[in-house]
Amino acid sequence: MKHLLSLEQLSREDMESILGRVDAFKSGRPQHSRPLQGQTWALIFSKASTRTRVSFEVGIHELGGRPLFLNANDIQLGRGEPIKDTARVLGRMVHGTIIRTYAQTDVEEFARNSGIPTVNALTDVEHPCQILTDVFTFQERCGSIQGRVVAFIGDGACNVPVSWIWAASKLGFELRIAAPAAYQPSPELVRRAGGRVVCTEDPQAAAAGADLLYTDVWVSMGMESEAAQRLKDLAGYQVNASLVRLARPGALVMHCLPAYRGKEIDAETFEAHADTIFTQAENRLHVQKGILDWLVS
Amino acid sequence: MKHLLSLEQLSREDMESILGRVDAFKSGRPQHSRPLQGQTWALIFSKASTRTRVSFEVGIHELGGRPLFLNANDIQLGRGEPIKDTARVLGRMVHGTIIRTYAQTDVEEFARNSGIPTVNALTDVEHPCQILTDVFTFQERCGSIQGRVVAFIGDGACNVPVSWIWAASKLGFELRIAAPAAYQPSPELVRRAGGRVVCTEDPQAAAAGADLLYTDVWVSMGMESEAAQRLKDLAGYQVNASLVRLARPGALVMHCLPAYRGKEIDAETFEAHADTIFTQAENRLHVQKGILDWLVS
Amino acid sequence: MKHLLSLEQLSREDMESILGRVDAFKSGRPQHSRPLQGQTWALIFSKASTRTRVSFEVGIHELGGRPLFLNANDIQLGRGEPIKDTARVLGRMVHGTIIRTYAQTDVEEFARNSGIPTVNALTDVEHPCQILTDVFTFQERCGSIQGRVVAFIGDGACNVPVSWIWAASKLGFELRIAAPAAYQPSPELVRRAGGRVVCTEDPQAAAAGADLLYTDVWVSMGMESEAAQRLKDLAGYQVNASLVRLARPGALVMHCLPAYRGKEIDAETFEAHADTIFTQAENRLHVQKGILDWLVS
Repeated sequence: MKHLLSLEQLSREDMESILGRVDAFKSGRPQHSRPLQGQTWALIFSKASTRTRVSFEVGIHELGGRPLFLNANDIQLGRGEPIKDTARVLGRMVHGTIIRTYAQTDVEEFARNSGIPTVNALTDVEHPCQILTDVFTFQERCGSIQGRVVAFIGDGACNVPVSWIWAASKLGFELRIAAPAAYQPSPELVRRAGGRVVCTEDPQAAAAGADLLYTDVWVSMGMESEAAQRLKDLAGYQVNASLVRLARPGALVMHCLPAYRGKEIDAETFEAHADTIFTQAENRLHVQKGILDWLVS
Repeated sequence: MKHLLSLEQLSREDMESILGRVDAFKSGRPQHSRPLQGQTWALIFSKASTRTRVSFEVGIHELGGRPLFLNANDIQLGRGEPIKDTARVLGRMVHGTIIRTYAQTDVEEFARNSGIPTVNALTDVEHPCQILTDVFTFQERCGSIQGRVVAFIGDGACNVPVSWIWAASKLGFELRIAAPAAYQPSPELVRRAGGRVVCTEDPQAAAAGADLLYTDVWVSMGMESEAAQRLKDLAGYQVNASLVRLARPGALVMHCLPAYRGKEIDAETFEAHADTIFTQAENRLHVQKGILDWLVS
Repeated sequence: MKHLLSLEQLSREDMESILGRVDAFKSGRPQHSRPLQGQTWALIFSKASTRTRVSFEVGIHELGGRPLFLNANDIQLGRGEPIKDTARVLGRMVHGTIIRTYAQTDVEEFARNSGIPTVNALTDVEHPCQILTDVFTFQERCGSIQGRVVAFIGDGACNVPVSWIWAASKLGFELRIAAPAAYQPSPELVRRAGGRVVCTEDPQAAAAGADLLYTDVWVSMGMESEAAQRLKDLAGYQVNASLVRLARPGALVMHCLPAYRGKEIDAETFEAHADTIFTQAENRLHVQKGILDWLVS
């Protein structure tokens, strides 16, 4: 039984096996193979979602399966039913589950008890599907990511940079994280991951010569109460023209969206790199297919 | 790239091209052609819906596609993501979009940026799919609407009468709008549309000899705070037996539902004309198929 | 036109006709017949649901149909549209309807007006699909339920025991209901059903020699305000090891879920009988298929 719970738990071989399937799905859409024919895959989402939801719903459908979207508040899980019980019930009715929630332990407990493939579609700890897409998009534009330099600018402690840390460790590229002192990733985690990860408070140093500048929203879902403090703390970490100028000529700018102009990125930089950013969004569809196909093969 | 954003922007030829497809879809249901085979069409709805939603979901499905219903509050659009960005993302993942929202400009901005067919399934300005169905239903019962008389009784400034104004102008029938002074359609709009539109405060005058009496709910979604005032203002504009008696013998009574008995229509008149009214509701399914088929052909 | 509105209205022959179809659906999943091919079935749910919803959605899909889930709050029904009107509209667009709501009369009014097969998927009065599954699960494990003893422990006045009362009457088994005085089923109902139904306040007496101990959540959806009182009143009616010891050796323990450990069942008893309980949950899928197939055949 395969799951995709985190990049920490995914081997380099598995990452490459997933990424290696994507080209065929992208170029053959939608007349490709249908490995989920006759299956139903549940999506259990506790948070708002556009890209993750639509890419999985369309991807499951185009692979021959039926997506069954369940707002966590509409099922008994939202009224306190233990995850272990929901997992045991769904495991007997559907063929796989995509979960978007808060606690990483919830996704892992679901996977342990359901007996069906389970995907982490965002938790507080990791966002593995997003970073697999980002790596695919980078390689589609620039060739192998091995030995390249990725600069993440912003809150370095949240799920997106954590997944980047594990990707850097396993795929062999340099990751620089520029974040205020209070937003640095856990040193223990960085040590444990063991790749080439440079943590700094200086966005200019991180961006210098980088192949990819990457940013993410400053106030994620569930952080609304800390919004004012976060905006103040992160104010110096905007991706804008002066930062892009420090990167390698032709460097990519990515954003996993939604984007807040004038906050983590300025409007001009966003639009100048919109082709990359919306290709990155589109690639979520193709990469989800790679993930699903890998899970059932 | 075709869209259905308003009747104002739809030519007479396009209206006739849409309406001309409906008979085959109605009589052949559901063993007709499947022009949406393999496609996913998103429905983004900001408001409650029964008829519009079910008719589009069933219609897309019976044309071979998969409807993907998105409550606007469940996606990032509801958390402030710009329409332009949502449009650019969805345009790369799905094959068409049906939008039910408040601002007409939102639907138009979506269409401009998504690169996929976009349908206005109700805005504050127009309700084109409804009025196309109403015209189809009239013609199914009474033959060509050209030269006939339609009397709209109620709030003449909202989306339904505005779409009727454009239909009258383009299809060549007389439209009479009976509404209190404060609920008259914009004179500028009436002038711009240029058809035979008679605006009056006198429902009896509007009904006299009409081929169709048409009414709509007095307190639409989003107007709840003005309910008491509206009920008072519109009290004299009920469609009831004494008004129907003034119309042409055998005149149709239509209501786009939901109906509030004792308000815009009395219970006896509603039930006496229920066969027309629920055929009108059913026809939304067949007309949505005509719209979808026209969009992709 | 067949409906499944209650076990009260279902004959023994119909129950057996439904149950007789389930084995083939269970063993042949999902490569069995597809009697709903080309159809859309609406699910109108006013309450949270996991098992009922997922089993019907997967069941409809695997029978060839498309389930269309409608949260009652997202349609005009939630804004006061009469059931009679919603029924007349949906009856012209979809092929069947599954309703989960409060008032039994609402489901019956829908069935009367829609002209399409209608299923009660939980009301305040009955939960027929659940009890059909429970009977199927019992018979799958223990052979014919005729002449056997079922002990329901808990609130004897709610929908689940009422459906058990009708099942006992029609299928010829003994039903014992152990409940506090204020939670006894209506004597008039028990008299009207006319089977072997023993009502007692003594859970030990009910459990003695029983073939099946059955429990249900003490605080159902919509009863949250009475929670403290109910927990106090029902405290002596827990299914636990000392109660199970009184039943026939090898007796089954069932729970229709969600389960609240330490309330209606203790954690040890729940886990000791988890294989039965989650098979019971799984069987909802197979029995829903039997119900749907019976409705359209």
